[in-house]
Amino acid sequence: MGPGPSDVAPSVLKAMAQPLLGHLDPVFVKMMEEIKAMLRAVMLTKNDMTFPISGTGSAGMEFCCVNLIEPGDEVIIGVNGVFGTRMVDVAERCGAKVTKVEAPWGRIIEPSQIADALKKVSKPKFVAIVHAETSTGALTPVEEISKLAHSAGALMVLDTVTSLGGCPVRLDDWGIDAVYSGTQKCLSCPPGLSPVSLSPRALEAATNRKSKVQSWYLDVNLLASYWGQDRVYHHTAPISMNYALHEALRLVLVEGLENRWRRHEQNHLALKRGLAAMGLALTSQEGHQLWQLNPVGVPEGVDEVTVRKALLTDHNIEVGAGLGPLKGKIWRIGLMGETSKKENVRTVLDALGEILNAAGRKTDTEAAVSAVGA
Amino acid sequence: MGPGPSDVAPSVLKAMAQPLLGHLDPVFVKMMEEIKAMLRAVMLTKNDMTFPISGTGSAGMEFCCVNLIEPGDEVIIGVNGVFGTRMVDVAERCGAKVTKVEAPWGRIIEPSQIADALKKVSKPKFVAIVHAETSTGALTPVEEISKLAHSAGALMVLDTVTSLGGCPVRLDDWGIDAVYSGTQKCLSCPPGLSPVSLSPRALEAATNRKSKVQSWYLDVNLLASYWGQDRVYHHTAPISMNYALHEALRLVLVEGLENRWRRHEQNHLALKRGLAAMGLALTSQEGHQLWQLNPVGVPEGVDEVTVRKALLTDHNIEVGAGLGPLKGKIWRIGLMGETSKKENVRTVLDALGEILNAAGRKTDTEAAVSAVGA
Repeated sequence: MGPGPSDVAPSVLKAMAQPLLGHLDPVFVKMMEEIKAMLRAVMLTKNDMTFPISGTGSAGMEFCCVNLIEPGDEVIIGVNGVFGTRMVDVAERCGAKVTKVEAPWGRIIEPSQIADALKKVSKPKFVAIVHAETSTGALTPVEEISKLAHSAGALMVLDTVTSLGGCPVRLDDWGIDAVYSGTQKCLSCPPGLSPVSLSPRALEAATNRKSKVQSWYLDVNLLASYWGQDRVYHHTAPISMNYALHEALRLVLVEGLENRWRRHEQNHLALKRGLAAMGLALTSQEGHQLWQLNPVGVPEGVDEVTVRKALLTDHNIEVGAGLGPLKGKIWRIGLMGETSKKENVRTVLDALGEILNAAGRKTDTEAAVSAVGA
Repeated sequence: MGPGPSDVAPSVLKAMAQPLLGHLDPVFVKMMEEIKAMLRAVMLTKNDMTFPISGTGSAGMEFCCVNLIEPGDEVIIGVNGVFGTRMVDVAERCGAKVTKVEAPWGRIIEPSQIADALKKVSKPKFVAIVHAETSTGALTPVEEISKLAHSAGALMVLDTVTSLGGCPVRLDDWGIDAVYSGTQKCLSCPPGLSPVSLSPRALEAATNRKSKVQSWYLDVNLLASYWGQDRVYHHTAPISMNYALHEALRLVLVEGLENRWRRHEQNHLALKRGLAAMGLALTSQEGHQLWQLNPVGVPEGVDEVTVRKALLTDHNIEVGAGLGPLKGKIWRIGLMGETSKKENVRTVLDALGEILNAAGRKTDTEAAVSAVGA
């Protein structure tokens, strides 16, 4: 129940343990096509260039930056947590001039802030936002920001590492040009791959560059020959991870996106009710709280680390620590993919109540658990 | 029996299918330490900075280049196949001035060639060699080249993607400063990780840079904080792949490096005898033939693709095609890790003989199989 990796369905683990196929085997190639098609369905996009990068979510972030940025390009990046901060670093290493649009950790990036930044940047290559900030639990609405970016002639880049599969992500409706995600959050697949998608406009920017993409491993011009129809050997794809992703995506589509989103919402609300009954509260911005990652404020006088270690050691429950300015101030409870279950919500509330009471607090654990509902 | 992924032991597949742990879980952290220790044992090095990169072998190649090269640096790279060619591309994308030392595909890079190149390059940052060229089956001896590199004040970089675990690789004895490998060849682990190791000298070059490493994902200065004692979150390690690598390395060490190398040698020699009995020959340089990757010359009048497809479709055996100038001219038979078995040698000879005979040739398949021996 941390910030990912989330629990993985038994059938995903079983798929991953199948014997290896070659990375150019016709059976594997067919599987690649199915993965691309299922990713498009999950991302709600028609983008042809939709496939998993052979690295984790951060490699997906780097994929978007190295392919879109040429040295000297101006970009605008929303920074309201760890991952926006990271993207600034990644983009600067690509030679970008970055304009940061900052918000306090836990709050969203407002469209008006992006509008202001766009006024100051003469020729923005892209505007980038972290949709779901895993480090803070804030979900920034994207649609209006995307319209602003396009009006200014910029591409729209979106980090969906934690949002994809857990709450609405509508690439084509929102006009997203470049997106990356991770497998180990709401897709409930082990970490190791980063699903990405480029719109035709983004792909054009990546192919009509003046300079070579600085990363050979992440160069979409080369990857397109392997994941496209040519099947030219580029690198040896992580076969087993792709087996796992294939099965994980199948499970997402069998459940149905709307049902899956609703499940994440309901379990988040149940956790929130339970926490409230214990006198605890989420620290993310009201009205923009992530369903899949719940930052719980550590009460005055309670030691964050002690409680978190007791959860792991005595109750076998992993929750995340706060990062950066939130270190010591929050616990991060993940309700992602397979982990998003009423039963898990009850278990974590019960365990948290027990630990807090043992530390001398008077927490109504029973009320908390019953607030979860059936 | 292609150029990898090789077959994987059942216990490796089983390890990979265990439930997920968090990337900062104490149990996983202990496993990381064990992986590092086992990698050092397999690489015959004391290098502290020895760990798996969260990407495939090509990401390991890029790791070495991005960390060691600063824009304008001069490097010398041996090019005698696909992977030397690739390294030139990767290094140039890092801003290196590359001096290529070329040999025909199938032949080794001679120390005298490196010596000549070193005379022409004023301040070489590194000399790099592909130890085992998977595309051609040539094994370049490293020790003398490494001495030449050091005498010229350069670091020695080695690609051991296909050599590690299948033939002697002695990092410290040979004075290798930066090395990368893959998991899916002679370690018999699914693809997805790239074991790397940096000597203290190489690490110093990577940490005392003037410019930031251009890749955030592969920056050893950041990775060291996660894989070192600080355990600072960098990216989410591919947990399941690390389970698999842990078990695969354990199997390598249980077998023993010397035994494992001998097994690879013996099965290579058995295949070579069998092929000779069929009138077929290896195309790699005599005296420097890789044990784990055997390039078989396609006889005059035989269609390479037809035979390779028949092996896959009718006999369930994957072999590799030739790449680049060797396209259509060779089949590449892998005898790597778990795949390196007498039984497999017999099976592929038998199948190859049957296909060639069906195509009207007169191949003594029985003699070939019996040449393999007990």
